[in-house]
Amino acid sequence: MRARLAAVPLCVLLLLSGSAEAKKKKPATSKPTAPLARLVGEAITSDVGWERLVHLCDRIGHRLSGSPQLDKAIAWAQERMREDGLVEVRAEPVEVPAWVRGSASLKLITPRPMPLDVLALGGSVATPEGGIEADVLVVDSLDDIASRDEGEVAGRIVVYDLPFTSYRETVGIRVRGAAAAAKKGAVASLVRSVGPKSLQTPHTGNQGYEEGVTPIPTAAITVEASEMLRRLQERGTTPRLALELGCSMAPPAQSANVIGEVRGSEKPEEIVLVSCHLDSWDVGQGAQDDGAGCMAAMEAGRLIARLPEPPLRTVRVVLFTNEENGLAGGKTYAAEHADETHFAVLESDTGAGTPLGFRVDLRVPPTEPGGEAVRDDDAWPATLENLAPLAAALAPLDAAKLTPGYAGADISPLVRMGAPGFGLSQDMSGYWPIHHTEADTIDKIDPVIFRKNVAVFTTAAWVLANMSDPPRP
Amino acid sequence: MRARLAAVPLCVLLLLSGSAEAKKKKPATSKPTAPLARLVGEAITSDVGWERLVHLCDRIGHRLSGSPQLDKAIAWAQERMREDGLVEVRAEPVEVPAWVRGSASLKLITPRPMPLDVLALGGSVATPEGGIEADVLVVDSLDDIASRDEGEVAGRIVVYDLPFTSYRETVGIRVRGAAAAAKKGAVASLVRSVGPKSLQTPHTGNQGYEEGVTPIPTAAITVEASEMLRRLQERGTTPRLALELGCSMAPPAQSANVIGEVRGSEKPEEIVLVSCHLDSWDVGQGAQDDGAGCMAAMEAGRLIARLPEPPLRTVRVVLFTNEENGLAGGKTYAAEHADETHFAVLESDTGAGTPLGFRVDLRVPPTEPGGEAVRDDDAWPATLENLAPLAAALAPLDAAKLTPGYAGADISPLVRMGAPGFGLSQDMSGYWPIHHTEADTIDKIDPVIFRKNVAVFTTAAWVLANMSDPPRP
Repeated sequence: MRARLAAVPLCVLLLLSGSAEAKKKKPATSKPTAPLARLVGEAITSDVGWERLVHLCDRIGHRLSGSPQLDKAIAWAQERMREDGLVEVRAEPVEVPAWVRGSASLKLITPRPMPLDVLALGGSVATPEGGIEADVLVVDSLDDIASRDEGEVAGRIVVYDLPFTSYRETVGIRVRGAAAAAKKGAVASLVRSVGPKSLQTPHTGNQGYEEGVTPIPTAAITVEASEMLRRLQERGTTPRLALELGCSMAPPAQSANVIGEVRGSEKPEEIVLVSCHLDSWDVGQGAQDDGAGCMAAMEAGRLIARLPEPPLRTVRVVLFTNEENGLAGGKTYAAEHADETHFAVLESDTGAGTPLGFRVDLRVPPTEPGGEAVRDDDAWPATLENLAPLAAALAPLDAAKLTPGYAGADISPLVRMGAPGFGLSQDMSGYWPIHHTEADTIDKIDPVIFRKNVAVFTTAAWVLANMSDPPRP
Repeated sequence: MRARLAAVPLCVLLLLSGSAEAKKKKPATSKPTAPLARLVGEAITSDVGWERLVHLCDRIGHRLSGSPQLDKAIAWAQERMREDGLVEVRAEPVEVPAWVRGSASLKLITPRPMPLDVLALGGSVATPEGGIEADVLVVDSLDDIASRDEGEVAGRIVVYDLPFTSYRETVGIRVRGAAAAAKKGAVASLVRSVGPKSLQTPHTGNQGYEEGVTPIPTAAITVEASEMLRRLQERGTTPRLALELGCSMAPPAQSANVIGEVRGSEKPEEIVLVSCHLDSWDVGQGAQDDGAGCMAAMEAGRLIARLPEPPLRTVRVVLFTNEENGLAGGKTYAAEHADETHFAVLESDTGAGTPLGFRVDLRVPPTEPGGEAVRDDDAWPATLENLAPLAAALAPLDAAKLTPGYAGADISPLVRMGAPGFGLSQDMSGYWPIHHTEADTIDKIDPVIFRKNVAVFTTAAWVLANMSDPPRP
């Protein structure tokens, strides 16, 4: 069955899509308001979202879970939502881990003294008093370290020098490298930064120790340093490093998901969730990851709230906390809102490059409480048909590409419970070089493309909040 | 008149050029040696130059004038030249300035505390004891600062936020910004780094105070910081900064130009100088600027010295000192070798990108001693004709583009005295992002393209050392 839009936006969509078949099914009405055109027009011409992103980046800065900056951002975002006319604006409490980076230094000792850039990985333990000085063993991969004798590794600082291919293919070494090296007796592990380009640019990110394996200090080094250590080893020198990390884990902190709503007119109990994460790593400005996504989500709420008529369903804007190092925001929300109907859950968390469409994650809901939804790839053609109004509305923005895929970390607990997930899909070529680095700053974002993302995200929220039929066939 | 190559290489050149006209003029001989083909083949297949570049970068590192690393490089390069069979290998003493960077810190105070990256500019004075804390004035250009009232500028830290267009167009603000700001009473000046891309990447470089104007501390900040300061100012906030620079000028140091030769067989008194600069800024590895150029110059000497027969003229390899902050090496050499005949002077100092050809700077020699050579652009067509053998030899390497232009800083004193200058011309798109930064490291250099540069530089040296007629018509 071809899904149709209910209520107001239909006439606009039909005009936008130019679909003769759709026109035949239901002729355009003479309703005077054209909310989707208005939303797109305001998204593309308004400075509000951009100026908020400037404020978030320049005045508040990066926002690690447990930091005062994140608290400041949480308070500020609620004020903005109230100004925007959203209702039920609140900060829903979430307990988050509070990892503190502390001091860090890395020095090449052999073959010559030289300071090297270093950025501890999230959750890393500190080095012992006085730091660690040890010989280096450069390895290629997790398989490589697993194949080594303990005698080769024990007492060493392991350096994982894996060149970037894609994030998906290379991030595993960052996440599991410390545990893998510790199992062989390494005293610390360093990972070549996970990124495609480097100007001496370390990339932080999360990592996970394994239960039962001694946690060892772990950090990212630059591509430049990693390749130098490899060159030295390949030429017969065992490099020696001195590492000092002053990381610590404070007691869990109180944080919050920031939430505001535009109540639906006909089905207020059905929720179209529009989301992002407000926390960031403690480097740069958290501009692409995920300040831009948050300002797009807030703009979707603001612009929809300004329309003369509300959407059919409730649009709920959620700025999640603690995506980067724990996902406590997403998990807590899913647990506390499990009994609500999430008609669709949207997230923007892949930067602010040119929008392309959405990665759609539709699963068959679990049959019993607490069960997990399962993928059903065979349903994709029918899903695409149901989503035709969404594609039609996105087509004029050249962002109508709907593909099956992972929709986003914060909404993943909801998706696993069966909520239809939509991840804003963007050109990420400018994203990976600055991902989790000091260079994730607003100057990397084009204001025109940012506003186009606002238009796409708002359009999708509006269309989904007004569709007659659910995304899932 | 069409210039011809003398002696051995002619047959090879004719084969390479495939010029029917040339063949008609002088048929290929049956001489068994094919030196140019051998030079190109060895340049492209040998690992010696690359491994030396690895050694220079990884084992010695950056090499500022007056530093122990530069001394080490000077000693090492002489050893290599002796191994290579060059003759008259020596270090000709040069007195160089010894600027010491010292400590540096920059902090945003208003609107919020935040550390910022900073890199003092060469020759900068230190800040007073305890550093400087002052309000910021962001300006666009030297004209902008010149147009300001002293009341606007006095007591401020001036920030020059000029976006990069080309190095030539934007470097002036780095060189003259401190003096221009000091004239209006500024207490320090900061320049947006001169480079096209940034991952929080400050670029150092030289600057010049003006006589009679109080020298004020001056440094480069990142593109990110510069744009943030501008955004704050444009939105009504006067940013406040705390700057501390511990720069100092030590007494002049003894350094040296490293020189080695392959004596010419027929005109040993005519010199084809093949050069680069061995010093670098005190950041990164000085890999593109100008380690790669030096290894190419040394390879030219080594490969030509290995031939069974020497060139007609003397090939003299010169690794100049102190290009970056004084040009004392180039000036001293020119003064001390003024009575020698420099048939051609070549320099490689624009990185290690794909070689394109040479920038040729031919001037009419001065008529009286101590006079300056003058350009004669009308002579270019005839010059090109004289250089046809060079272009023909470079054509198979796809690097035959000869254009009139600036040949290089170190050889500029010789060129002004009338020596024909040849600057190796390269694709510089990968050069400017890392120029004078911590990211100027060997990983940015493609070994295959490096070897192609060696081939081009060696070919040019060989052809010029054997040409029958001088470059100048």
